[in-house]
Amino acid sequence: MSVQEFDELFEKVSNWGRWGPDDERGTLNYITGAHVRAAAELVRSGRSISLAIPINKVAGPDNPNPATHLMVQTYDIGADAAPQFAMDYLGCACHGDCHTHIDALCHIAYKGKLYNGKPLTSVTSQGARVMDITAFAHGIVGRGVLLDIPRLRGVKWLEPGEAVTTEELEAAEKAEGVRLKDGDIFLFRTGHHRRRLEQGPWNNGYDGEGKAGLHATTMLMLHERKVAAFLPDGDGETVPSNVEGVAYPIHALQIGAMGMACADSLQFEELVRLCEEEKRWEFMVVATPLRLPGGTGSLFNPIAIF
Amino acid sequence: MSVQEFDELFEKVSNWGRWGPDDERGTLNYITGAHVRAAAELVRSGRSISLAIPINKVAGPDNPNPATHLMVQTYDIGADAAPQFAMDYLGCACHGDCHTHIDALCHIAYKGKLYNGKPLTSVTSQGARVMDITAFAHGIVGRGVLLDIPRLRGVKWLEPGEAVTTEELEAAEKAEGVRLKDGDIFLFRTGHHRRRLEQGPWNNGYDGEGKAGLHATTMLMLHERKVAAFLPDGDGETVPSNVEGVAYPIHALQIGAMGMACADSLQFEELVRLCEEEKRWEFMVVATPLRLPGGTGSLFNPIAIF
Amino acid sequence: MSVQEFDELFEKVSNWGRWGPDDERGTLNYITGAHVRAAAELVRSGRSISLAIPINKVAGPDNPNPATHLMVQTYDIGADAAPQFAMDYLGCACHGDCHTHIDALCHIAYKGKLYNGKPLTSVTSQGARVMDITAFAHGIVGRGVLLDIPRLRGVKWLEPGEAVTTEELEAAEKAEGVRLKDGDIFLFRTGHHRRRLEQGPWNNGYDGEGKAGLHATTMLMLHERKVAAFLPDGDGETVPSNVEGVAYPIHALQIGAMGMACADSLQFEELVRLCEEEKRWEFMVVATPLRLPGGTGSLFNPIAIF
Amino acid sequence: MSVQEFDELFEKVSNWGRWGPDDERGTLNYITGAHVRAAAELVRSGRSISLAIPINKVAGPDNPNPATHLMVQTYDIGADAAPQFAMDYLGCACHGDCHTHIDALCHIAYKGKLYNGKPLTSVTSQGARVMDITAFAHGIVGRGVLLDIPRLRGVKWLEPGEAVTTEELEAAEKAEGVRLKDGDIFLFRTGHHRRRLEQGPWNNGYDGEGKAGLHATTMLMLHERKVAAFLPDGDGETVPSNVEGVAYPIHALQIGAMGMACADSLQFEELVRLCEEEKRWEFMVVATPLRLPGGTGSLFNPIAIF
Repeated sequence: MSVQEFDELFEKVSNWGRWGPDDERGTLNYITGAHVRAAAELVRSGRSISLAIPINKVAGPDNPNPATHLMVQTYDIGADAAPQFAMDYLGCACHGDCHTHIDALCHIAYKGKLYNGKPLTSVTSQGARVMDITAFAHGIVGRGVLLDIPRLRGVKWLEPGEAVTTEELEAAEKAEGVRLKDGDIFLFRTGHHRRRLEQGPWNNGYDGEGKAGLHATTMLMLHERKVAAFLPDGDGETVPSNVEGVAYPIHALQIGAMGMACADSLQFEELVRLCEEEKRWEFMVVATPLRLPGGTGSLFNPIAIF
Repeated sequence: MSVQEFDELFEKVSNWGRWGPDDERGTLNYITGAHVRAAAELVRSGRSISLAIPINKVAGPDNPNPATHLMVQTYDIGADAAPQFAMDYLGCACHGDCHTHIDALCHIAYKGKLYNGKPLTSVTSQGARVMDITAFAHGIVGRGVLLDIPRLRGVKWLEPGEAVTTEELEAAEKAEGVRLKDGDIFLFRTGHHRRRLEQGPWNNGYDGEGKAGLHATTMLMLHERKVAAFLPDGDGETVPSNVEGVAYPIHALQIGAMGMACADSLQFEELVRLCEEEKRWEFMVVATPLRLPGGTGSLFNPIAIF
Repeated sequence: MSVQEFDELFEKVSNWGRWGPDDERGTLNYITGAHVRAAAELVRSGRSISLAIPINKVAGPDNPNPATHLMVQTYDIGADAAPQFAMDYLGCACHGDCHTHIDALCHIAYKGKLYNGKPLTSVTSQGARVMDITAFAHGIVGRGVLLDIPRLRGVKWLEPGEAVTTEELEAAEKAEGVRLKDGDIFLFRTGHHRRRLEQGPWNNGYDGEGKAGLHATTMLMLHERKVAAFLPDGDGETVPSNVEGVAYPIHALQIGAMGMACADSLQFEELVRLCEEEKRWEFMVVATPLRLPGGTGSLFNPIAIF
Repeated sequence: MSVQEFDELFEKVSNWGRWGPDDERGTLNYITGAHVRAAAELVRSGRSISLAIPINKVAGPDNPNPATHLMVQTYDIGADAAPQFAMDYLGCACHGDCHTHIDALCHIAYKGKLYNGKPLTSVTSQGARVMDITAFAHGIVGRGVLLDIPRLRGVKWLEPGEAVTTEELEAAEKAEGVRLKDGDIFLFRTGHHRRRLEQGPWNNGYDGEGKAGLHATTMLMLHERKVAAFLPDGDGETVPSNVEGVAYPIHALQIGAMGMACADSLQFEELVRLCEEEKRWEFMVVATPLRLPGGTGSLFNPIAIF
């Protein structure tokens, strides 16, 4: 795809202005109370499962900024007779390929503009002035639909560089008996984390081996279907990029054009077992970013409830 | 209450051994699939609301370890023509009176033992070996019941040092038309955060003005009712302590004896408005601590869904 | 002093262009090999003394960003028979009133320009591109001269708001039998830290009680004398400012106009005892900022050698 | 060398009790005022040079815990007309193979004892109670002597696993016309950092390719010569270890037995050029750890002054 085609696609899927000039919620606006109630009605067995990777403290080619987890106090302090406390500290730059996190709508700019046309000065050294992560503070709650591409293909994972098309997404829908619709939370699985569990970390950046993701054209489908949020293993990007000269085209389209609540680096290894057991690929999803004023994103631990 | 009476109470409400010697979930074991389904059935309007205080970056007498929130990158880097990214970093010692967090079951020891009789060496300088916060990784999901004591009393907040009794909890149940029962998530409101919003931070520690909380004897009620989790504004403690010579008696009983999933420092200022509008004090609660191996607790953002 | 007078003063003491358009060292250029040798010749007793405040981990009105000092590992890990290690972590935003630190020349801008006319874009979210703290990497070594104003006045410390004039600096020179000259490192004592030790932390900012410091006009003297570096207790500033509408005029003049290596928040409580014992107020000084690429300053521990 | 031989060597070079039961300074006690004065007399040209590696922010096989360097504020905040400030934050676990740091005497224990027989409980989760890094707060000042082994051998660097013997140290002394004596600061060069500059990071740990260092028997020489401090590139250790079953024997002997002030991970690439130019391998050294109460070590930036 050429830059020109990309820019046309950007225009097509753009939601700029759709929910007013000061919109902070983007495609989450698709989720109404009725959607939430319908999602809650999917709860039957009451089983819930985490979609997060355990917080990663080990540096690697895909984890240049490991989390810092240190003890503040252990039980070597204080008298045994009185209550004693163990406490710790966590420091993390959340936007990394091994940290399960969600992006705020202020996280990306394309051609000098953020979602809804906001200027680059929307984020300063003191944090985001608009569209920070607190826009999602009351939680992302809705129907989750997992499209499991390795399951469709009969492989463990997609290899770096492979791009999933609209046709393949639709084939996955058929295979699972689900259909992405308005207000849905789309869980997209390439097997990224499974590959890491089995083969170890790899340099998945633009200067390395790359990763599997969506083809840029799938954004038309997500736009038409009015998908509200996107939760991938990996980060949705195909690396190398399908778009000539544009790195991170999926982020640019999803967040920058559509204003979509997008997460990165989830894992579905526990989820897929549950889906097979329950024979369904739809469930209630609850995701609650930390309430961080000025934040461009947040570590989080989204869950699926069956 | 004397130490001897306290120790007797500790025995009475103890769940040590109840769910086996290697139990990691404590009173969360009370929550069955049926409880989760019943909680989901409470979702009607689909409105959700955060129970977390915005992450507090400002030092104060009740916030000696403010969170460190710094930008990793802003839009002064990169060319406007390509996608650019804004990213940040968050560091926090979560166990503070201004940080909405949940404690792991390893967080407290009394008389040299953790919940279920585990030894002090269960936590080392490398983190917790057992009963870390990942025991709650798949989320705390259930029916939440708010007992709003200031509402019952017709005051804005309880003053520091005031202890709420079982009788008063029961009176609040009557006033709100709810009843705490097995598997419930108990939201306890003293107005702690409301007081802070209106009067500013205060030294609420044992060397200062103190805070309002539960009387130690209420633990009998929570134990009999088989409450699964505890979410207070403040931290549940009455300071000064009702128990002679024992600081943090509520933590010791709830976490140390009962193995209860306990959070600290929530805020219900948005929730109480929703409760009044919906005329109900029960709702679905979803709380998802970060999946931090070895962690003694976690910042989190629990939500209520109506 | 009016803004206009201030701007005239700025021009008078400016060293912009003096050492070329790409100068990184400012007034440190005054220190030649001969100055260093002469400083070394001041070493007689061989006693050395720290000029740093112990790193401050406690939040207070003058320490909103306390240092984070946590253990990485203690001796609860590993077998006693093999070597075991204790390790820790330090995190700090150095530019605080309780952290002994040195500023890089990129630390301040006045009227949109840094020292030597460099643009604001010299510092980005990725750090300083020019005039970072590594410009001082090979150490600041020279003759230190302490002018102890409380000693001159016969008081323990100067009170907040008091400004020291050129006349008073000259009187201190006479009283101590020293004279600031080219290439000197000027240690300026108001007793700031002594006051803190005796009376506790205070809000010394522009919105609080203020602090004692230099009068802006003393910059003419420092400029004429060709002082190479400035090490104060406090930070040299008189608060409230002597200059109408300009906060931090001393920083603006010293760093912004003169390109002077300036530190903040030292303590001379151990030094003054040594000076009295040795009956001299000049000595060798060695100050070595951390070698932090892109850094706008550094924690450090300068010492005086007698 | 067997463990038994190692333990005998430990006894031979032990300084336990030598300077009293509460000694905090170990071999720094060898440095008298006369030593400092003599060191200052070595200052002739007045040139000074850093011995530190620039602070390393990039994860790698030898840098699993990269430093966190983030901006606190840049010039995108504030009005151009008033002074504006750029500020940053540095966080680092100093005891890493790519961070130039010094160890406190509490940093290592062997057979359950620290230097001078202190117990393991000397360090808790709240920091070191004795022999913390503030014991060196007033600086390490003395004569530095560089023994440059690659120069002696005519190679760029020693290869991992190579151990330098006493004979080779003596040969280097002869080749350079110097002799290590009481109170000296011993700079030991294997070319570790040169190798890294030319060939990139490598896994130099016990599970990897290893590193070049001292043979354990050289400790007898350092003990007899009454060396006061040790500044190596690398960390002095030969990996794999020369001592069967004992990792880090050099640290155990130097710090644990002798109480020697030991640094790790310096670089001498700038120093060696200066030595050649000045045709001397002795100079004044000043090293000033941060004044960190409870600290087990410190980032620092030692310098040589010629």
